[in-house]
Amino acid sequence: MENRTYTADAAPGETATVAGWVHELRDLGGIAFLILRDTTGKIQIKFEKDEMDDDLVETGLNVARESVISVTGDVDEEPRAPTGVEITPDSVEVVAEADTELPLDPSGKVDAELSTRLDNRTLDLRKEEVQAIFTIRAEIQHAAREQFRELECTEINTPKIVATGTEGGTELFPITYFGEEAFMNQSPQLFKQLIAGSNVERVFEIGPIFRAEEHNTPRHLNEATSIDFEGAFCDHHEAMDVAEAVVTAAYEAVAENCEDELDALGLAEEFEVPTGDFPRLSYEEAIERINATGELDEQLLWGDDLPTEGEVALGEDVGEHYFITDWPSEIKPFYIMDQDDDEQLSTGFDLMHPRMELVSGGQREHRYDHLIEGFEQQGLDPEAFDYYTKMFKYGMPPHAGFGLGGERLVMTLLGLDNIREGVLFPRDRQRLSP
Amino acid sequence: MENRTYTADAAPGETATVAGWVHELRDLGGIAFLILRDTTGKIQIKFEKDEMDDDLVETGLNVARESVISVTGDVDEEPRAPTGVEITPDSVEVVAEADTELPLDPSGKVDAELSTRLDNRTLDLRKEEVQAIFTIRAEIQHAAREQFRELECTEINTPKIVATGTEGGTELFPITYFGEEAFMNQSPQLFKQLIAGSNVERVFEIGPIFRAEEHNTPRHLNEATSIDFEGAFCDHHEAMDVAEAVVTAAYEAVAENCEDELDALGLAEEFEVPTGDFPRLSYEEAIERINATGELDEQLLWGDDLPTEGEVALGEDVGEHYFITDWPSEIKPFYIMDQDDDEQLSTGFDLMHPRMELVSGGQREHRYDHLIEGFEQQGLDPEAFDYYTKMFKYGMPPHAGFGLGGERLVMTLLGLDNIREGVLFPRDRQRLSP
Repeated sequence: MENRTYTADAAPGETATVAGWVHELRDLGGIAFLILRDTTGKIQIKFEKDEMDDDLVETGLNVARESVISVTGDVDEEPRAPTGVEITPDSVEVVAEADTELPLDPSGKVDAELSTRLDNRTLDLRKEEVQAIFTIRAEIQHAAREQFRELECTEINTPKIVATGTEGGTELFPITYFGEEAFMNQSPQLFKQLIAGSNVERVFEIGPIFRAEEHNTPRHLNEATSIDFEGAFCDHHEAMDVAEAVVTAAYEAVAENCEDELDALGLAEEFEVPTGDFPRLSYEEAIERINATGELDEQLLWGDDLPTEGEVALGEDVGEHYFITDWPSEIKPFYIMDQDDDEQLSTGFDLMHPRMELVSGGQREHRYDHLIEGFEQQGLDPEAFDYYTKMFKYGMPPHAGFGLGGERLVMTLLGLDNIREGVLFPRDRQRLSP
Repeated sequence: MENRTYTADAAPGETATVAGWVHELRDLGGIAFLILRDTTGKIQIKFEKDEMDDDLVETGLNVARESVISVTGDVDEEPRAPTGVEITPDSVEVVAEADTELPLDPSGKVDAELSTRLDNRTLDLRKEEVQAIFTIRAEIQHAAREQFRELECTEINTPKIVATGTEGGTELFPITYFGEEAFMNQSPQLFKQLIAGSNVERVFEIGPIFRAEEHNTPRHLNEATSIDFEGAFCDHHEAMDVAEAVVTAAYEAVAENCEDELDALGLAEEFEVPTGDFPRLSYEEAIERINATGELDEQLLWGDDLPTEGEVALGEDVGEHYFITDWPSEIKPFYIMDQDDDEQLSTGFDLMHPRMELVSGGQREHRYDHLIEGFEQQGLDPEAFDYYTKMFKYGMPPHAGFGLGGERLVMTLLGLDNIREGVLFPRDRQRLSP
């Protein structure tokens, strides 16, 4: 819109045209106030009934809440106004009238269920604190990208329609692709490895992944955003350093650039940037510490996967981000390399937030013979993955990498209860629309 | 890898460890040269047979091309070496031996068909000029993101699994979603509009789109990257300004940051950054100019869509990026708004590169009644899109936006013959793997 001024930029002494939604109307008799809201904030519009044109007053005070209006008038200082300024209107135009019945109240005075909010995201996102989540989400992705670029990584885009799944165990969504069977990709794992084996060497991708898992929990999604890294000539220690740097950079960027948003979410006081030097616990130490908490009914034994309650108990015990390293090889995927000096131990690692797992990574098996063996042990037919395995015969450097759950990073950074709070249009077993 | 030095950073007078692929071996009798290649370039390794340990010479000169090796030794100036420096090795380690038979030759001395290259992307990407394409592709995306951020846009991620297609006519890939019918999304169109109608106001997304079109041409893909913009309180003129800014920013960033890559592609001399002030032709003017070229067998009439040959003829005539505006409403999608003063004309626009269409955009229909009418005229059931249309009853501001074909931008910027050259793992009717 030509000549539009954002409410945050309306300066006393100027004549300005602001446009946005009718947030609130307060009619005090001889005087009335309309609060107009736009992407930058809110501003007070003053109607002095006796001193103004009747049509103007009529238009301004009869418009339904959440209608879109455009107002032109003089901006003045007014200490009693919510933002310290107000506009005395010369003209008010109703641009888009809203129904008087709204499925949810963007002023936030009436609480709404999450499902109602997700069904009406346009209205939901008119709340300052919901808008703040997505401003911060964008900032996190930007910070991750900048950190990867600083670490000499090239951004890539790998295909989401694939002929074979990446990981045997996890469920795939089937697609019909011109009469052929295909799937939506669970992870860029195999593709990013294929690129790391070329001159590109160090790559990252931020993109959607699709998992047909039947989970229905506050921390699982069927369509999610994965932040992936893969680096040639890297080992798992270097991959851990990269994961640490990316997570820390996200916190730093939010602390630095999203003060207003943290404030809108009531987090300005408590928000802490991690030290960037996360403790590294071995799997063995992790199960010992979990067992010592006494939170589990049964003691964990070496080789057990960590149950959710175990992760939670350990997270409370550690109290900050931490790595779990030296996992038993048998509970890590086939493409994770075993350790040189003890093949019972893998190079796999997880980066944990005290609440949940954020990152899974490791050094990859780059030796052709070992890789083929791994496929067979996993019960997968290596022939079906020939497009991938054959490249390991042509000079595949050692490489390592990780996948970081984009929504889990948002969820833990902001302390959201439900991962769906951090997704515009989440997909789960029950939700396919909008 | 600890202590690894990139070949580009190996400085005369130092002892360095470099690691990479065996690019070439030249055995001149008493002396032999191995060219080692990594992500930053190449370096010469000198073997003086009489003055070196036999094992070292043996290892260095018998390793197959494209094997991965690591070399430690003194770096010296050597004007006759390709990069002006060479390493005299103290040790050579073969990290990953390559087969002696390669499906394609990364040194580029033997040409390969595109399909062989795509089947063996890892090897293909070891060519400097292929690596250059993807470095530039990443730079283009980065430049687009930075330009959008400068224009106060928030990056969003919209779902790729959807219950209904965005545009009636275009074909959809069906998915089975927990027993329900769903589709892979053709375009973030409806979702980005839903966000533009909230406080977020101005959004962009760079993500995959999926089109089950049976096209099989050098400029169509079935999975592509769409660069999308949508802005509340914008009209089509402002959306055109944004498209112009993003395309120009991409060229500027490549000119500024990718000199070596342009050089590798033989484009350093001819690469030109557009002026950023693209001519705006009306549709009527466009068909007149096409007709005047005499390139078409039949003259175009008002209301005809532009055939490919027509676009090419006009592109040659105009000779730079240009917009086509004032399209007939009947050949633009239902969500594009008609012009205020003439409803036969739409607010839709295309941004054209002389070779092909890059961008399609326009002001959107934000008036609920008109929108419902549009669905019906398009033969779509508005009820199926209730999740979208109902938000237009709650104060939907005027808004405009566009979709820019990410791969077409790469293709036209670099003058690639085939759009697949600019995609790591393209998807088309014949290609689903790797």
